[in-house]
Amino acid sequence: MARVVVNVMPKQEILDPQGQAVVRALGRIGVQGIADVRQGKRFELEVDETVTREDLEKVAATLLANTVIEEFDVVIEGASAVAGEGEA
Amino acid sequence: MARVVVNVMPKQEILDPQGQAVVRALGRIGVQGIADVRQGKRFELEVDETVTREDLEKVAATLLANTVIEEFDVVIEGASAVAGEGEA
Repeated sequence: MARVVVNVMPKQEILDPQGQAVVRALGRIGVQGIADVRQGKRFELEVDETVTREDLEKVAATLLANTVIEEFDVVIEGASAVAGEGEA
Repeated sequence: MARVVVNVMPKQEILDPQGQAVVRALGRIGVQGIADVRQGKRFELEVDETVTREDLEKVAATLLANTVIEEFDVVIEGASAVAGEGEA
């Protein structure tokens, strides 16, 4: 089994009201120096050795991210356990 | 400015209905071999050199995570730009 992380973030040109709400709340807890906050999603997947990067990209684009407004990044931790990755 | 990432995930003992919904949908798109999915949040912060790790932990515990049901992890990218980090 390998651990795969998929990070999903709002595209740069998309407003992020959740992140902006955090920025506005910073003063309330007395923290200065944080200029911007953006909120996205993090998915942790447990995958076996039959799963390819192509499969993972399909899952991310279809089920995890809304690619109209979000971009995603697939990070394989322990690459040798995923089909077609980490073979010299 | 340094980029800081805060990852927030549901604690292991907490049910994750969003992640389970993704698992159930995998068959619909014909992907097998993904045993588990957990959904959390990813925050990307732009911070200046006056911000300490202590500040970041406070922000994460107070504004970003609900520590009753979630755990968080503060990852500083470009550590030398954050006060008190990366100094030999």
